Amino acid sequence: MSSSKKPVRPPTDEKIIQMAKNVRLQGLAGDDPRFNVPSRTLANVNFNEVKRIIEMGEGKTAREFFNLGQSKKFMQTMLVAEACKRLVDAGKTNSIRDLYYMTKHTIATTRENTFDDQAESDPIIEDLEVTLDSLREELHLFASNKGAMVGEITVVDGGDVIDARRMGTGGWSVPSIVEPNVIQFRECEAKFILLVEKDAMWRRLNEDKFWKLHHCILIHGGGQPPRGVRRLMHRMVNELKLPLYVFVDNDPWGYYIYSVVKQGSISLAYESRRMAIPSARFIGLSSADVQKYQIPDEVTIRLEDTDIARAKEIMAYPWFQGKKHWQTEIQRMLSSKVKLELEALSAKGITFASDEYLPRKLKDKDFLD
Amino acid sequence: MSSSKKPVRPPTDEKIIQMAKNVRLQGLAGDDPRFNVPSRTLANVNFNEVKRIIEMGEGKTAREFFNLGQSKKFMQTMLVAEACKRLVDAGKTNSIRDLYYMTKHTIATTRENTFDDQAESDPIIEDLEVTLDSLREELHLFASNKGAMVGEITVVDGGDVIDARRMGTGGWSVPSIVEPNVIQFRECEAKFILLVEKDAMWRRLNEDKFWKLHHCILIHGGGQPPRGVRRLMHRMVNELKLPLYVFVDNDPWGYYIYSVVKQGSISLAYESRRMAIPSARFIGLSSADVQKYQIPDEVTIRLEDTDIARAKEIMAYPWFQGKKHWQTEIQRMLSSKVKLELEALSAKGITFASDEYLPRKLKDKDFLD
Repeated sequence: MSSSKKPVRPPTDEKIIQMAKNVRLQGLAGDDPRFNVPSRTLANVNFNEVKRIIEMGEGKTAREFFNLGQSKKFMQTMLVAEACKRLVDAGKTNSIRDLYYMTKHTIATTRENTFDDQAESDPIIEDLEVTLDSLREELHLFASNKGAMVGEITVVDGGDVIDARRMGTGGWSVPSIVEPNVIQFRECEAKFILLVEKDAMWRRLNEDKFWKLHHCILIHGGGQPPRGVRRLMHRMVNELKLPLYVFVDNDPWGYYIYSVVKQGSISLAYESRRMAIPSARFIGLSSADVQKYQIPDEVTIRLEDTDIARAKEIMAYPWFQGKKHWQTEIQRMLSSKVKLELEALSAKGITFASDEYLPRKLKDKDFLD
Repeated sequence: MSSSKKPVRPPTDEKIIQMAKNVRLQGLAGDDPRFNVPSRTLANVNFNEVKRIIEMGEGKTAREFFNLGQSKKFMQTMLVAEACKRLVDAGKTNSIRDLYYMTKHTIATTRENTFDDQAESDPIIEDLEVTLDSLREELHLFASNKGAMVGEITVVDGGDVIDARRMGTGGWSVPSIVEPNVIQFRECEAKFILLVEKDAMWRRLNEDKFWKLHHCILIHGGGQPPRGVRRLMHRMVNELKLPLYVFVDNDPWGYYIYSVVKQGSISLAYESRRMAIPSARFIGLSSADVQKYQIPDEVTIRLEDTDIARAKEIMAYPWFQGKKHWQTEIQRMLSSKVKLELEALSAKGITFASDEYLPRKLKDKDFLD
């Protein structure tokens, strides 16, 4: 990754240097070294009704070196920051598991390890993200990679021109880091983006060349889309002004995938600004579809108790609570006592999703917002 | 998928028609309709010492229509065969979950379903595979999709030319079905294939352009490689005469991944012929590496009881039992009481795997066979 196309915010390495300088100056001045970490607690999360995204509040807690309960975390944060600086300087990226190994060592003259487990280093990474106001990707770190893309767009990935119209049956594997210094957009004739929950439906639609007939970008994230897919969609929606439609199972998990794509998540509220897509719309499967598309009873699946509990939780989310059509949607699923998978559309014919279901949904603008 | 480039064996649709014809003729002749299904039981699996792959034996069991215990399975096999015929005729592919939905319905005038669960249809698919001697992919069915590829090769995928030298940071997403009618090979300068267990290490090597420096194909399967990745490697090894090196964690799971890639698996023994790669070699991580490459103690991980039990099972596999170096390899892991992840190499430096570990292994031909 080159550092040529940086946003107007200070580059990540400068932020790390500034943080280290502050700590050093505090020490030299005889003060207790400390820095402020924005709180990643539920109490410090709220739903911004205007922007329609989940956001972090202003709450911060100090992390102090001369504090028995914080000293280890202070040291760990410095270690992680130093490792990220090394990655940025080297122009290299690494997984968060590699980062754990990069920063793990036994402290000289003791039997104490800097980290005993990745469960210790992951939250420190998140602390550093919010402290520096840098996305994980800007710290040159990535999590898992899932998802593929085809459609009417050309992207440049690490200098290579990827024509997503000519990516065969496999597609372009969406990388974990899709910041503007790695990925740039070129020609795009797509009129919208279709996010499909599952790989199998994505293959169905790609095989039927749905994206060509309907001029779109077809992307999947193998379930809950990973950060790379979410961030890429965020960039395409904002930079290319494309609408995004979300196509998921009709079950609480499908609703939740849509919810995270649209509003962001509570646990990663600090990322919403660069991940959440408030304009995203839900194209299906809807609990109304069983009747509307005459889906046979025997391919529906009975709701389990956990589904019912989860559906009620989702209904109570502030961003769904104010919306009558969403209350109706979820209530109808609960009353029908059944859920529906994308694959169930196959019961209506091999290409039913490509030839009938989606075209009709798009034509009728039958979306939930 | 077009049906232009078929192997010399009869096409799948003809095999299905022949199977149906036989059943019909038996009925017309007043005989009990029946067909023979090769047994997929452990007793019917053996290790072929000459070919060095796990194979199915000759055992078969009859599936009879007029047999109370077999009648439902008979009907189910016919239904699945009919659905596969529809897929083949339409030139379409589907997931095994879609196939379940395609064949599920309530039997007229009863409350009985043809299938109640995918757990019922999956084994029927495997029965059909062995009965027809057709791979799942030839029945136009696919399972999950994972894995990506870059490197010094051009492939044609569904008519699109994929230059794996210019696939950016993401790579080409390896599809589930890679039979010759979908995927063809073009220019290849690669000298070998490197299969990496994990996505994170694949990204490390791709970022460092390892495949360019060492003229190889770099592929990962996100853990145990899925059928598409295994079958693609099998084709590349056999058609392009490339050696395959397997790069996995040093733990029983890593040994097992290597074992399945090389010899095939017991549960899917009937696929070994077109999936197993007996020439595959193990490049690491080896239990000898901790000392050889001076990996710091604190990045090793203590073996758990389940690891120890699994390692002993693997040592006892016939294909490992006859090999002294493998007995030494696994015994050394057991004696050291620790395992080692690929990411642990990061403790030696960000690009240690690309710049030192793998080049030295390749130069010294430090492989296990």
